[in-house]
Amino acid sequence: MNSSTKQKLDIQKAESSRIGQVDFNNLTFGSTFSDHMFECDYKDGEWQNPTIKPYGPLTISPGAKVFHYGQAVFEGMKAYKDDDGKVWLFRPEENFNRINKSSKRMAIPEFPKDIFFEALTELVKIDKEWVKKGLGNSLYIRPFVMATQVGVSASPSTEYKFMILMSPAQAYYTGDVKVEIAEHYSRSANGGVGAAKAAGNYGAQFFPTNLAREKGFQQVIWTDASKHEYLEEAGTMNVFFRVNDTLLTAPISDRILDGVTRKSVIALAKRDNITVEERPVSVSEIVEAAKNGNLKEIFGAGTAAVISPVSAFSYHDTVYDLEHQDNGFAMRFKKELMDIQHNRSEDPFGWRYEVL
Amino acid sequence: MNSSTKQKLDIQKAESSRIGQVDFNNLTFGSTFSDHMFECDYKDGEWQNPTIKPYGPLTISPGAKVFHYGQAVFEGMKAYKDDDGKVWLFRPEENFNRINKSSKRMAIPEFPKDIFFEALTELVKIDKEWVKKGLGNSLYIRPFVMATQVGVSASPSTEYKFMILMSPAQAYYTGDVKVEIAEHYSRSANGGVGAAKAAGNYGAQFFPTNLAREKGFQQVIWTDASKHEYLEEAGTMNVFFRVNDTLLTAPISDRILDGVTRKSVIALAKRDNITVEERPVSVSEIVEAAKNGNLKEIFGAGTAAVISPVSAFSYHDTVYDLEHQDNGFAMRFKKELMDIQHNRSEDPFGWRYEVL
Ligand SMILES: Cc1ncc(COP(=O)(O)O)c(C=O)c1O
Ligand SMILES: Cc1ncc(COP(=O)(O)O)c(C=O)c1O
Repeated sequence: MNSSTKQKLDIQKAESSRIGQVDFNNLTFGSTFSDHMFECDYKDGEWQNPTIKPYGPLTISPGAKVFHYGQAVFEGMKAYKDDDGKVWLFRPEENFNRINKSSKRMAIPEFPKDIFFEALTELVKIDKEWVKKGLGNSLYIRPFVMATQVGVSASPSTEYKFMILMSPAQAYYTGDVKVEIAEHYSRSANGGVGAAKAAGNYGAQFFPTNLAREKGFQQVIWTDASKHEYLEEAGTMNVFFRVNDTLLTAPISDRILDGVTRKSVIALAKRDNITVEERPVSVSEIVEAAKNGNLKEIFGAGTAAVISPVSAFSYHDTVYDLEHQDNGFAMRFKKELMDIQHNRSEDPFGWRYEVL
Repeated sequence: MNSSTKQKLDIQKAESSRIGQVDFNNLTFGSTFSDHMFECDYKDGEWQNPTIKPYGPLTISPGAKVFHYGQAVFEGMKAYKDDDGKVWLFRPEENFNRINKSSKRMAIPEFPKDIFFEALTELVKIDKEWVKKGLGNSLYIRPFVMATQVGVSASPSTEYKFMILMSPAQAYYTGDVKVEIAEHYSRSANGGVGAAKAAGNYGAQFFPTNLAREKGFQQVIWTDASKHEYLEEAGTMNVFFRVNDTLLTAPISDRILDGVTRKSVIALAKRDNITVEERPVSVSEIVEAAKNGNLKEIFGAGTAAVISPVSAFSYHDTVYDLEHQDNGFAMRFKKELMDIQHNRSEDPFGWRYEVL
């Protein structure tokens, strides 16, 4: 275990803010960064010098292991501002636990909880103006860790950098998405790193996702790599299938990310007495349900888009359309989740975390 | 396709060389870099400003996609100096083709051949003092590509950096290696990126390899992710099994790297009338052959160590020892390959490539 001796957080404030240059009504997701970032280095066996400083470039050797061996993990979470100007996080402990779980699988030393929470809350406080009011507006928060030791030999790094960047995100409605069910490519293997938010899992999906896009589908729903018989998850979302009034979703395994939105949807559904089955969901049963009219909805669940209804899926060159349900499960969970996140409703599960 | 309009290579020489500070008899693989490096950026749809410059740090945004999504690939090759002082590469066209194959799978634009070869040969010429004479000494060459566009949204980068670093490597003899056959973890999935030299494939192996090390095994031999029934390859080496006088090795697939050393060993074996079977090799047949004395050798084949004899493998908690064969296939192919690489023998296959 790493030293948990609390280190003093050094805070270096930017001389001026860039916020005036930002058009908050025209944000491209993930491309604008707030004034400050957090940085902490692992060296000589411990995490050192936690620092909040102005957002800016790094100086890093081209021999750093992250460039060569993809030894890197990340998280994605959001801060929300309520109508009174209070700022909230949503289940941040889940993200903290998950980044350390991801790190472990990638042979990266775990990060201390006290530094994580102090850095996270201080950073959000310092850049609180970057969190805008309004349902759906948020400040996207990206903690990540990368291997910084210089060396082009394939072995774990002895040095790492933990960082947090923040990027304002708009309420966005991209419309319902069309998805392709994977029949050839795959996202992860049994015994692989699919359950970790490892950097390389994402780059690996770009090519097959491009192929799907060329055919008119925005996302791929991955299936098991062995036989492509079972539905797993999408690129950055877990996936739910509503067959009549039952909600189906793949169980968590070492191939699937244990999504915070997924587990929140399951909790909401159970509270509302909706039957949820976490079990292998076969492509054939979903195709069958689509054919006989029992398939009512498919939707993705993830931090970035909260809930994304699926309007069509393709399998074996056939496209199966789904009617949009204004009062379906997807829209209902989306509203329930967003209301909790933005402090517009009760918080029966204790998911909100007040920053200031 | 990318523009293939030849761009002029800009060469900026270092003011002085660091070579005097390097102890060439005490090199740690991959940790010392030569005086110069190559850099070329992809922007606005083309590769631009190919430049050789002094080795040094990069200035890069912490939001660059390589840190978050592992969109990066690499190659590994070597330059050798013969006794007359001539410098050679070994089958460089294979590495060039492979990096573009890897790039394609990772949605990275391909790199133009003319710039690759000009940069590679100029770089080796400029740093020729870093290639030392002597069988086994070499200059390890690391071409790589990384996604540099700033943005924390999971989609392919629009900007990339192609680089080449070079690192002097010593003749090294690490002794025979003990390996563990993977029974739980896996390296790659059907339809995944195992056949690409994608950065994330390597970081993903560190944790299970650490577990094997703790048990006294230096490397893992990966098996198919579905059932762990078939032997695939090691972390940075393809693997050969000699059963009596037949050489067995896994066929190339989308899970396995198409190694240059592997295909060279196969060519040498065929020339020498050794039967080579490229076919799925089951764990059970190798265990069986080990038990009844027909398993004569196991060895890894890869650029870094050329050929690595295996002295023992573990499976189902049993360790199977292999006697070292001074006159076995492993040592024979190692000598044949190194003699060709260092211009100490004929080159019947036309594998050598003269740099200067
Ligand atoms: C592969 C993958 N699946 C699912 C999710 C959804 O997880 P969460 O709800 O925690 O954002 C994500 C991430 O963000 C993801 O990257
Ligand atoms: C996974 C893997 N297998 C095999 C090899 C051997 O390939 P080569 O002989 O081209 O070096 C390597 C690499 O270097 C590798 O990374």
